Amino acid sequence: MIRVSPLIDRLVEALQMLPGVGPKWATRMALNVLQHNRGGGSALATALADAVAKVTRCAQCRMLCEAEVCAICANPKRDERLLCVVESPVDVIAIEQAGSYTGRYFVLHGRLSPIDGIGPAQLGLDDIAGLARERGIDEVILATNPTVEGEATAHYISEALAGAPARLTRIAHGVPLGGELEYIDGGTIVHALQGRRSV
Amino acid sequence: MIRVSPLIDRLVEALQMLPGVGPKWATRMALNVLQHNRGGGSALATALADAVAKVTRCAQCRMLCEAEVCAICANPKRDERLLCVVESPVDVIAIEQAGSYTGRYFVLHGRLSPIDGIGPAQLGLDDIAGLARERGIDEVILATNPTVEGEATAHYISEALAGAPARLTRIAHGVPLGGELEYIDGGTIVHALQGRRSV
Repeated sequence: MIRVSPLIDRLVEALQMLPGVGPKWATRMALNVLQHNRGGGSALATALADAVAKVTRCAQCRMLCEAEVCAICANPKRDERLLCVVESPVDVIAIEQAGSYTGRYFVLHGRLSPIDGIGPAQLGLDDIAGLARERGIDEVILATNPTVEGEATAHYISEALAGAPARLTRIAHGVPLGGELEYIDGGTIVHALQGRRSV
Repeated sequence: MIRVSPLIDRLVEALQMLPGVGPKWATRMALNVLQHNRGGGSALATALADAVAKVTRCAQCRMLCEAEVCAICANPKRDERLLCVVESPVDVIAIEQAGSYTGRYFVLHGRLSPIDGIGPAQLGLDDIAGLARERGIDEVILATNPTVEGEATAHYISEALAGAPARLTRIAHGVPLGGELEYIDGGTIVHALQGRRSV
């Protein structure tokens, strides 16, 4: 890296903590802001400092938000008898963008990974069974990712909920829309065949 | 866009002023920082606020820096009789990274573009002739980009320096290293042929 000036170097270094931003691009971003958009830069600095200081987790679903309870949990129109368990806040946004789900969420903020010291307590897994009983939840949808850890997490939750009255479901895995069988991996095809439905 | 919470929405919006960052990626960045790297987020907010508040232009070469004179102009080892004129601070960094240039720079911060109200005064073009005389500069290297505006800017400078004792040169345009003739545009090939040298 070429050193420009201490403050600019520090900014370039700090920008690299953003996911997907390397040294070259960080330099471009820093110089672009300082040359053309100082107002935007100030606004970003303030927005970032405020969010870091004030955003916590929703007391009910553990989604990131600055209020006691997030907008989804506070919305009386959402079906509170439907609980979708996801690994992270971005998953909530992905499902919300799809636009068909009307229930609530539970955000694990991770997946079971004993090697990294992430056990059921860190993920709040034991709260789910309690929630299922308290709120009279009808259905818990396990929407963890179809990775080894995601499946292990889903499996753990299903065991923890074994005695609860809630129905337990797992999102379908199969060929994505627009996907071509030719380019789909074998594991996905196995799932697509196993999950076939009559038409 | 899915609304998450006012503070997070404001952060996602603010991140989009960074070049090349769209709504989807801004969301990913914001949630990633809030979930996994709040320390980095705070550091970035501070670095950005400091840089926006304190970075100005070098009094001699107009490069971005927070000191009165930038590190390159302040370096007594740099040849002050060689002046390279570039459009923007990223060009200085590109040339420094190449590592072979030992002279000084003059940063225009743009290029002649009357339609956008950018004339010779905004680019400090008239200072170059003065500099060339004052400092006893031997050679002015025109390294503006080979675009219509970049060429016009180079042409204007060459006319402004017509009476000055400094030699005036333009960086070479031709086939880039690793480039294949097959994929190079015609204009570049014309330049490469015109600029041929005996071997």
